[in-house]
Amino acid sequence: MNYLELSKELLLEEKAKVEAEYVELKKKELSLDLSRGKPGKIQVDMMTDMLTCLADAKDCISENGIDCRNYGVLDGIPEAKKLFADLLCIPAKNIFVAGNSSLNLMYDSVARCMLYGTVGGDRPWCREDEVKFLCPAPGYDRHFAICESLGIKMITVKMTPTGPDMDTVEALVAADPTIKGIWCNPKYSNPDGYTYSDETVERLAKMKTAAKDFRIFWDNAYVIHHLYEDKQDSLADIFAACEKYGNEDRVMYFASTSKISFPGAGLAMFAASDANMAQIKPILSIQTIGHDKLNQIRHVKYFGTAENINKHMMKLATVIRPKFEITLDILDKELTGLGAAHWTKPVGGYFISLYTLNGTAKRTYQLCKDAGVTLTTVGATYPYGKDPDDSNIRLAPTFPSEEDLEVAMYILTVCVKLAVLEKLIADKN
Amino acid sequence: MNYLELSKELLLEEKAKVEAEYVELKKKELSLDLSRGKPGKIQVDMMTDMLTCLADAKDCISENGIDCRNYGVLDGIPEAKKLFADLLCIPAKNIFVAGNSSLNLMYDSVARCMLYGTVGGDRPWCREDEVKFLCPAPGYDRHFAICESLGIKMITVKMTPTGPDMDTVEALVAADPTIKGIWCNPKYSNPDGYTYSDETVERLAKMKTAAKDFRIFWDNAYVIHHLYEDKQDSLADIFAACEKYGNEDRVMYFASTSKISFPGAGLAMFAASDANMAQIKPILSIQTIGHDKLNQIRHVKYFGTAENINKHMMKLATVIRPKFEITLDILDKELTGLGAAHWTKPVGGYFISLYTLNGTAKRTYQLCKDAGVTLTTVGATYPYGKDPDDSNIRLAPTFPSEEDLEVAMYILTVCVKLAVLEKLIADKN
Repeated sequence: MNYLELSKELLLEEKAKVEAEYVELKKKELSLDLSRGKPGKIQVDMMTDMLTCLADAKDCISENGIDCRNYGVLDGIPEAKKLFADLLCIPAKNIFVAGNSSLNLMYDSVARCMLYGTVGGDRPWCREDEVKFLCPAPGYDRHFAICESLGIKMITVKMTPTGPDMDTVEALVAADPTIKGIWCNPKYSNPDGYTYSDETVERLAKMKTAAKDFRIFWDNAYVIHHLYEDKQDSLADIFAACEKYGNEDRVMYFASTSKISFPGAGLAMFAASDANMAQIKPILSIQTIGHDKLNQIRHVKYFGTAENINKHMMKLATVIRPKFEITLDILDKELTGLGAAHWTKPVGGYFISLYTLNGTAKRTYQLCKDAGVTLTTVGATYPYGKDPDDSNIRLAPTFPSEEDLEVAMYILTVCVKLAVLEKLIADKN
Repeated sequence: MNYLELSKELLLEEKAKVEAEYVELKKKELSLDLSRGKPGKIQVDMMTDMLTCLADAKDCISENGIDCRNYGVLDGIPEAKKLFADLLCIPAKNIFVAGNSSLNLMYDSVARCMLYGTVGGDRPWCREDEVKFLCPAPGYDRHFAICESLGIKMITVKMTPTGPDMDTVEALVAADPTIKGIWCNPKYSNPDGYTYSDETVERLAKMKTAAKDFRIFWDNAYVIHHLYEDKQDSLADIFAACEKYGNEDRVMYFASTSKISFPGAGLAMFAASDANMAQIKPILSIQTIGHDKLNQIRHVKYFGTAENINKHMMKLATVIRPKFEITLDILDKELTGLGAAHWTKPVGGYFISLYTLNGTAKRTYQLCKDAGVTLTTVGATYPYGKDPDDSNIRLAPTFPSEEDLEVAMYILTVCVKLAVLEKLIADKN
């Protein structure tokens, strides 16, 4: 059955059936949450040994003799920089290992542009009449929130399976010098799970920008967050591509171990060109004496090598993968062929994007809420919280148990059906 | 002998003696450091058990059920807020427990004023034509560096044994609406070790300011950092005083456990009025999801109560006090009565201020350096790095061993004598 082909009578008939089921489900008074890109308890339980892996004074001495229990070291202990260097294939000299939050690094990075300006720029961005960012959407709401908070105007660019619509990006940045940046979540993107194609990376690196100090905020949050050993996306090296075109100052690169070790108690890092580092480090030296080196050496001691981190990610995948598969299986089983929705099928990351028939996402959200299932707020995946199509719903399967996930997902599909049937019936009036 | 009363001949004679001793000391090719307000190894060794006090999953669950191993909680876990509340006598609701660095909180706090403005202000400070801060000096160089970095003009105010010269402070803030803030390190101040008198606190709270959004940046870094059980300074409650005059939004309060637990891996906090919190928290929620809660619960588990922290400080005092006493004994023994210098005698904190005869501090620094003793850069304790009297030298006795400290201090006194003798002789020419 395809809803889009049904007569009004058949739609009403179908709606009566779905509604009856919805009423029954509501009676269960459940409280389930599909909204949060948050590791499950079983994942953090796997990290218990990290808590005690620093046991005495000698464990706290860095390979260069620095006592991690005391002050000092702005940009991270050498072995932590090396660990990220190996993991991300970025030279250690271009890596800064910081505190627990890459979001904080991103916020600070944009705030620093506002207050001090950037390499190649004429003035602090707060002295410009207007600053705009391109925001591939759907995307990560916290990126958009940084712009909104700092008064940066957001221009939505359509996200595609190969990355942002590059024709639009190129045309916009070439024409408008007030466009100073673009948010990118290039691998297993939030919420679609898409990975930028090599061509997209190349075009981002190569494109001419009217702004002399244009910046790509490259949030590689899911860089090694694969679900499968044998099916993995790969992402081209943005630094190498930028260097090829003499644009190496264009990239601000971010990552963290939030979804590798402990969310909120992991390590965050950024990477930048030599010239950017030379500008940023003196400013950071005013901001702080240094970040928590005990947590840095704790991570190094626990993981040892980048290879071990990759192995650890495959262990985590054994508990995350089933949740993605449950989610996708239920969507397949319940919604395929109805014309009510389509969805992405990522092989990594933390999210699945569900696109309901235009104009039905908010109603789906409300129906779910009334039945005890919390979804990511509809619109959150777009600048200013407004999905022009009222279609995108971000699904986050990692936090609930498999049992809860099954129930929540089933209810969601019922709500999608009901919302779409309501809409189609209303359209026929 | 008082150098100031000697004839040129006697000065030359004395100088020859001191110089001969200096030449001998130089031959030792020492490398000693009195410059850094950094806890000694023996202090951090006392904290070893904290490394492993979180041993398993159940240790990581906050009293309100929050899993500290996972995302969430912007303003700190409740038991960490309570610990600081008890320790500092500030209501928990007005406390924000953050990451590892109170300096970072101070920087962010001023940067936030620049980007967003403050409660009671008309606009972000970066939109003002000029912003000025009062800087009691000698003071903490990193406070001054924040102003310099953010383009805030600094006005030096004389520091006295009861706090900043309040007649000057009151007159300046009443007259000039571009004066938006004052840096205060009110207890066992850096570098003098002075504690603001009750009258000073009252006058800071009460004073009329031309700026509607004037802020006191109250860096209570050494709040419980006593050297003696029976000789302790006490500091009046700035929040209570401000509230009395309806100025409770005037204070931004900062503290940390950097010199209580692990420097650079402790907990930092700020406290602010309800109205300030209501402004700040939404901005911070854009900046980060939350700080390292594992380190928060680790501190709570290790210390348990504020009373235990105070007991711990008395244990730390047993290793810090002897270093202060060595420093003061050598100054007393070698320099008393010479007219070459005077110095402060703090009963807490991390520093002693040495004031050499005007015009001799830089020369003393250089003589020390050439003899292998590193002092805090002369001038660093003043805005823009310029001590108008060329007199103040900050002594930091905690990091070296007692043996090294004795040697370094003795060399310092020889250098002071030599610099002063040189100056007095030059003045006679």
